[in-house]
Amino acid sequence: MDEKGISKAVINRLPRYYRFLGNLLDQKVERISSGELSSIMHVTASQIRQDFNHFGGFGQQGYGYNVKYLYEEIGKILGLDQTYTMIIVGAGRLGQAIANYVRFEKRGFQVAAVFDQSPALIGTPTVHGLAVQDVSTLAEYLSTHHVDIAALTLPTKGALEVAPVLAEAKVRGIWNFAHTELELPPEIVVQSVHLSESLMQLSYKINH
Amino acid sequence: MDEKGISKAVINRLPRYYRFLGNLLDQKVERISSGELSSIMHVTASQIRQDFNHFGGFGQQGYGYNVKYLYEEIGKILGLDQTYTMIIVGAGRLGQAIANYVRFEKRGFQVAAVFDQSPALIGTPTVHGLAVQDVSTLAEYLSTHHVDIAALTLPTKGALEVAPVLAEAKVRGIWNFAHTELELPPEIVVQSVHLSESLMQLSYKINH
Repeated sequence: MDEKGISKAVINRLPRYYRFLGNLLDQKVERISSGELSSIMHVTASQIRQDFNHFGGFGQQGYGYNVKYLYEEIGKILGLDQTYTMIIVGAGRLGQAIANYVRFEKRGFQVAAVFDQSPALIGTPTVHGLAVQDVSTLAEYLSTHHVDIAALTLPTKGALEVAPVLAEAKVRGIWNFAHTELELPPEIVVQSVHLSESLMQLSYKINH
Repeated sequence: MDEKGISKAVINRLPRYYRFLGNLLDQKVERISSGELSSIMHVTASQIRQDFNHFGGFGQQGYGYNVKYLYEEIGKILGLDQTYTMIIVGAGRLGQAIANYVRFEKRGFQVAAVFDQSPALIGTPTVHGLAVQDVSTLAEYLSTHHVDIAALTLPTKGALEVAPVLAEAKVRGIWNFAHTELELPPEIVVQSVHLSESLMQLSYKINH
């Protein structure tokens, strides 16, 4: 499978395919044609075939794709056949929402620890009774625990302080919710969710 | 100012410009050249000039852009010179995080009401002491209150039930956090934040 040179747009569409295929599986649909998938996803059938061809086409026969196979193959491409140890830095409401989101755990993202700087939060239980740890002990924690992903659900200043500590510990990915960009070595993947920017795009669209 | 035919990519970049310009304003920077802006934003200067030319160029002189003017003009394009009444449907941790996010309020998005279906949450205070209301009274609320934007921070099933009620009341925009798409009349703007998909993109990038 040659996945080199696959455009960002294709990659960004994969999770959406995965979501729709998961729904079809829940509805016990066994096979689906690119035409049917096209009609429920509002994407052209040719776009779907083109996207899938990047990954070898997933063996569509005359009678369509095998839903379970397609779901699992796309899951593998997305890395969902593996498990990831995740920590959450910032135990406010957003951090707690992420920590308690069962869907993530079902996908293999396992929350191992939650950190915060607030004395009011440190020691309080979050997900599965994990107690919030003091963020000043983060470097020490990282020196003795393997962490794949760190979710940063804290304000900008804290995120900028914590990011180099995570980079030093060679965390593989940072899921950044802070209202800032992070300057990190290129081998560390940063995926940002800028909620303010999403809301601004909504207000733009409302007005145009 | 002719804003027709402006690509989605340009629109998606505007909030990022707005964020960087806001930071420059906070640092009391009065003027900036496209070259300087380029270097802090990691975007080419020609891209910046091209983007800004869609909106008349914002009058760059030989000595650069006026930061405050540029910030305000982009804010106007994004619709941030107006205020929006927002309700939040789903008062779990994510809904509470959104409700209490002061940055949104500073931008003119004012939370007027919060709804949920859970008896354990109804009546509890969220932002500014607003008590969570029973979602079964949402239609009634909408018949007597003007609402611009509804944030849906509840599971798929609830979101699919609530969306038609919001559409019927002619809410202008829906900020959708549910793990689903919403089929609504085209005049209603839907801006989705799919956290699961963002996390899958992160795991893809970690593995490739």
